[in-house]
Amino acid sequence: MIPRPALLWIAAALAPSLFSQQGANLTDEYRATATKLIDAAMVDHDGMDKLSYLCDRIGNRLSGSPGLEKAILWAADQMKSDGLVNVVTPRVKVTHWVRGSESAAIVEPVSKPMAILGLGGSVATPKKGITAEVVPVANFEELDKKSRSDIEGKIVLFNVPYEGYGRTVLYRHTGASRAARLGAAAVLVRSITPVSLQSPHTGALEYTDGLPKIPAAAVTIEDATLIQRLADAGNRVSVHLDMEARTLPDADSANVIGEIPGWEKPEQIVVIGGHIDSWDVGAGAQDDGSGIITALEAARLIHKLGLKPRRTLRVVFWTNEENGGAGGLAYREWTGSNVRNHVAAIEMDGGAEKPVGFGISSGGDGQAVLGKLREIGKLLERIDAGSIQPGGGGADIAPLMRDGVPGLAVRTVGAHYFDWHHSRADTADKVKPEDLRANIAAMAVMAFILADMPEPLQQPPSATR
Amino acid sequence: MIPRPALLWIAAALAPSLFSQQGANLTDEYRATATKLIDAAMVDHDGMDKLSYLCDRIGNRLSGSPGLEKAILWAADQMKSDGLVNVVTPRVKVTHWVRGSESAAIVEPVSKPMAILGLGGSVATPKKGITAEVVPVANFEELDKKSRSDIEGKIVLFNVPYEGYGRTVLYRHTGASRAARLGAAAVLVRSITPVSLQSPHTGALEYTDGLPKIPAAAVTIEDATLIQRLADAGNRVSVHLDMEARTLPDADSANVIGEIPGWEKPEQIVVIGGHIDSWDVGAGAQDDGSGIITALEAARLIHKLGLKPRRTLRVVFWTNEENGGAGGLAYREWTGSNVRNHVAAIEMDGGAEKPVGFGISSGGDGQAVLGKLREIGKLLERIDAGSIQPGGGGADIAPLMRDGVPGLAVRTVGAHYFDWHHSRADTADKVKPEDLRANIAAMAVMAFILADMPEPLQQPPSATR
Repeated sequence: MIPRPALLWIAAALAPSLFSQQGANLTDEYRATATKLIDAAMVDHDGMDKLSYLCDRIGNRLSGSPGLEKAILWAADQMKSDGLVNVVTPRVKVTHWVRGSESAAIVEPVSKPMAILGLGGSVATPKKGITAEVVPVANFEELDKKSRSDIEGKIVLFNVPYEGYGRTVLYRHTGASRAARLGAAAVLVRSITPVSLQSPHTGALEYTDGLPKIPAAAVTIEDATLIQRLADAGNRVSVHLDMEARTLPDADSANVIGEIPGWEKPEQIVVIGGHIDSWDVGAGAQDDGSGIITALEAARLIHKLGLKPRRTLRVVFWTNEENGGAGGLAYREWTGSNVRNHVAAIEMDGGAEKPVGFGISSGGDGQAVLGKLREIGKLLERIDAGSIQPGGGGADIAPLMRDGVPGLAVRTVGAHYFDWHHSRADTADKVKPEDLRANIAAMAVMAFILADMPEPLQQPPSATR
Repeated sequence: MIPRPALLWIAAALAPSLFSQQGANLTDEYRATATKLIDAAMVDHDGMDKLSYLCDRIGNRLSGSPGLEKAILWAADQMKSDGLVNVVTPRVKVTHWVRGSESAAIVEPVSKPMAILGLGGSVATPKKGITAEVVPVANFEELDKKSRSDIEGKIVLFNVPYEGYGRTVLYRHTGASRAARLGAAAVLVRSITPVSLQSPHTGALEYTDGLPKIPAAAVTIEDATLIQRLADAGNRVSVHLDMEARTLPDADSANVIGEIPGWEKPEQIVVIGGHIDSWDVGAGAQDDGSGIITALEAARLIHKLGLKPRRTLRVVFWTNEENGGAGGLAYREWTGSNVRNHVAAIEMDGGAEKPVGFGISSGGDGQAVLGKLREIGKLLERIDAGSIQPGGGGADIAPLMRDGVPGLAVRTVGAHYFDWHHSRADTADKVKPEDLRANIAAMAVMAFILADMPEPLQQPPSATR
């Protein structure tokens, strides 16, 4: 038997931080737990199996589609079999846009079929399509220098080189109405992507009230630059565009929610998740199958390892992120005054390439929050995912963040995400199993510690308002 | 006035090699000429304009197609207006394969259309198509372990990961007959490419005599791996395949040949060129529009600068490289016993990405030839294109090389060539103007010096046989 003072001395030597003046930090406190979670995640197969099932067997899942309905039912069942409780699917009314058949071709000065994808929300062309001269512009400034007579009845092509998603996507969002203001008959938008193999990328547009709604489609970099070269060489370029796209009455959909209840402060909540809907091409593998499966699998591993957080860890799969955002708003409404008890929300919607860490936007003391998160980040250095940077959140958790909930986002190397995003190429093969595992590891560690740390990341909105 | 011995001393100091025991080397002899050629090439616009015209206005040009006929007429005119003489278009009979309409879909366990491209030379399916179970295999060894009853009546999928073009293309060439031997109804071949955005890549197959000819199509990496995952998960996977492909009687085509005649030894010839035909998708921009335009533009600059080589510089655009090789054979036949006077042939058929230098295969004294070429290579260091490595040639000049003509190939960084090759994405936007210019510079310098150097690169075949 060892005398008690000696035992204390040995314990102090083994875990010095417990006895230091500054007290335990999160790095030391959760080292063993993080090791367990990372070890489990790095040999995980269930995550990839689920993602494959979602992508390969259910497929894409645009709001209003049977695919989304199937995915919601499957996800609720999956949450239950993965050990989550209080699984619910609160109904959400969502936009119901359908593509219908669509085609386009250059008809002058050469004949060449084009690969297009109508933009989400676009109206149809007249039944016989639109055949008109194309006016390519490189940006809004160039368009705005044109007179109405330059544009009226023509098809405007926004041939805008990719300069990062955030900067370039403006042309997809608002290009149709900007051209309609000058009387354009339709718009074509160069796909928002750095790389193309004749691959069009869809995405939502927004019509401006009070302006004519004109058909809008994404074209490939190849076809946009071809039209530009033909026009630059002095040719009149004409295109025939045919689109059946239409918006039906709003459809029924649902968020999918499940929990690992907190043992000490079950009313306090950490939300993790992504969006369950996708565009209607490809399989929504990276966008955002990878996000929802990462969150679910992180929760499953926490549960499977018998780890019980102090607060409730809530997994949310939001619906309708892609063309409406109804899921994020509905969750905010559904949780009502409980928003005051949300201590953090993590949205993953940037794909599961190799993770590098997390971004954070918090309404409170940014430095203190960054400091705590960096203590957690140290535990992710083992998988090179420990970088914590200001700037986080996501479309689905924006309604929570507006009420003061700190919003985090998973950050990855982001090498190819926008090569695949909103295109037929967003399929399960694009998600590397080893990268998915690293994302699951990072999410599990971050989510568990945020839900379990003795003091919350920052005082929840209830305490600060 | 400076006394004559002093002048000599100054000259010797400035150009020591001229006075050294070993005499002038090619680097020093052609420094001024190379500078002129590179300067001209690096501000060249005509090359890109020609490539754009070929790709954008004429488009793809498979053997037997109107596109190829148009390209041949245009190329002969272009050679003449670029200052070449003795422009001829000797007729060549070529394979005439046509794709017809084609489609495929997974029909079990999910319904999903597939993006395919029938392989060049493939036969059609029966009128109603083929619906059959798919048996994926990763290589020939795996196929050969199957019994006839495993394969008979089924569709074999060669889901072979890309391991470099040369290693993987074997499955496209010979897969159909290897599967037919076991009674397969059709084959699908994963596209031979490192990267895919749902992009199928076509290319020629070769049926083995004595075995049934079965339909064969390239599928995308996405669809190949999807079928593999579905099968690995224990599902029976079935595909419906519909192809109208057929081979018509041989068509008329032509090589296109033009010259800058040599002033001293016009009978001695340096050949430079590429192939004018392409596959029937995309625009054959990198493969091999870039090769023929590089050769033509190099010759045009030599002519425009008033440089006159000792030997004849001959530009050749071979036809039918993609699915038959009749152009290369026909050129060999057309040149007849003059093959003995060919001192070198440069084929460019690897795209016009940033050039790094040349590869060389010569039948004679490899070290001496490498040494001379490296003297020329030094002149290309300015544009980082001076690397000379063993191993050159190409499909179209192989018949010359078999008769002892040293064969060179332009070598590039080769970063993306096979991403585009034989696909709809091989379009003019893939060729960077600055890279095309550097290729023109490298080709012009190498071609001119080979045609002009006082002693030939090696004694022409006439002297060694």
